[in-house]
Amino acid sequence: MPAPRLYDYAASCNAYKVRLLIAQLELDVERVEVDIFAGETLTDDFRSLNPARTVPVLELADRRTLPESGAILWHLADASPLLPADSWTRTQVLRWLLFEQADLLPATGGLRFRLQTGRWQAGSAPAQARHAAGVEVLRLLDDHLRGRAFVVGDSYTIADIALYGYTHVAHEAGLPMDDFPHVDAWLARVVGQPRYMNDVVPYPPNARVGTGRSIYG
Amino acid sequence: MPAPRLYDYAASCNAYKVRLLIAQLELDVERVEVDIFAGETLTDDFRSLNPARTVPVLELADRRTLPESGAILWHLADASPLLPADSWTRTQVLRWLLFEQADLLPATGGLRFRLQTGRWQAGSAPAQARHAAGVEVLRLLDDHLRGRAFVVGDSYTIADIALYGYTHVAHEAGLPMDDFPHVDAWLARVVGQPRYMNDVVPYPPNARVGTGRSIYG
Repeated sequence: MPAPRLYDYAASCNAYKVRLLIAQLELDVERVEVDIFAGETLTDDFRSLNPARTVPVLELADRRTLPESGAILWHLADASPLLPADSWTRTQVLRWLLFEQADLLPATGGLRFRLQTGRWQAGSAPAQARHAAGVEVLRLLDDHLRGRAFVVGDSYTIADIALYGYTHVAHEAGLPMDDFPHVDAWLARVVGQPRYMNDVVPYPPNARVGTGRSIYG
Repeated sequence: MPAPRLYDYAASCNAYKVRLLIAQLELDVERVEVDIFAGETLTDDFRSLNPARTVPVLELADRRTLPESGAILWHLADASPLLPADSWTRTQVLRWLLFEQADLLPATGGLRFRLQTGRWQAGSAPAQARHAAGVEVLRLLDDHLRGRAFVVGDSYTIADIALYGYTHVAHEAGLPMDDFPHVDAWLARVVGQPRYMNDVVPYPPNARVGTGRSIYG
């Protein structure tokens, strides 16, 4: 059986979350870099991997495919300490995976994407509205982390990895991270985990065309 | 032990999803209506239930609380046929719960909310952009449902309930549902499930103030 493959993009923190988990669990996964700004997610081949044309996508050895970073984290961490078996703990992990994708990502990673690629100018009306949303979601996360070492329970889980992904680059979107001391301390705890790695790069400047889908654009 | 409580709002399809599951599994859950446009999610009491100030929130008999509709569905359906135990099936359910909250909800339910409450006018630039996103996500769902009876596997699961929530009112946001025949047939299959119920109402017109949070607004 071949190793599973991760269809990946270096600047995407959704993809980085999976790279981080793979490193921490020491999994054998082949990395396939996809240049989203060269149209490589717009091909028929990529559509067969993921009709939504997003990265990351995990392709298993038996060719089953799985999009959605949170679902990939869940699949790869199942039966590991990073996704405890307890039902209530799993429900809490799921809660934070949903919050991260629906609320935190648009207001941090979505803003970073649009500013770095030149879709929005800093200080423009849409950027200001998204910045305000970013402050709100980071305030929620900061309040949650007051008195807690990790997002769910007492140990490091994929909920931490999921939330770390875009939070750790939120300063690149101009968000005022000094205002969130509990987030700051938690980011440092994530960095201190065994086999931590970080290879995220910024999006290319003025990469205005290529991904081509309005829902991600 | 008292019954669990659902903090609920009739026009919210995130809340309706949970009401539908409760009806279908015949669970004993007390419904507590929260008037989001009268500031009832902005009180200190509500904050202690859910700092993000959204509905629905499930309060268990032992006072533990759970926000996020997808996590509530998961918790309540665990050990029922609506959330099969098989690991890969659960991963697929999770994939669609994430897609629904991150992609489908903003482009359907988010548009419906803003049009019905008078935040946006139909045909305005933000409404047109969101409409285009709605067409894309419904196209993805329609393509997925071609040749499938249900969203995951061969049986009705909480992935169907989650996606049904805002899809079944997407026409209220002006989305062209006649263009999505596989979605249409699937909506009818959901309606045909045992103990199906539907008590969703529109948002009140011109409800311009009240929820008060930029990330939901």
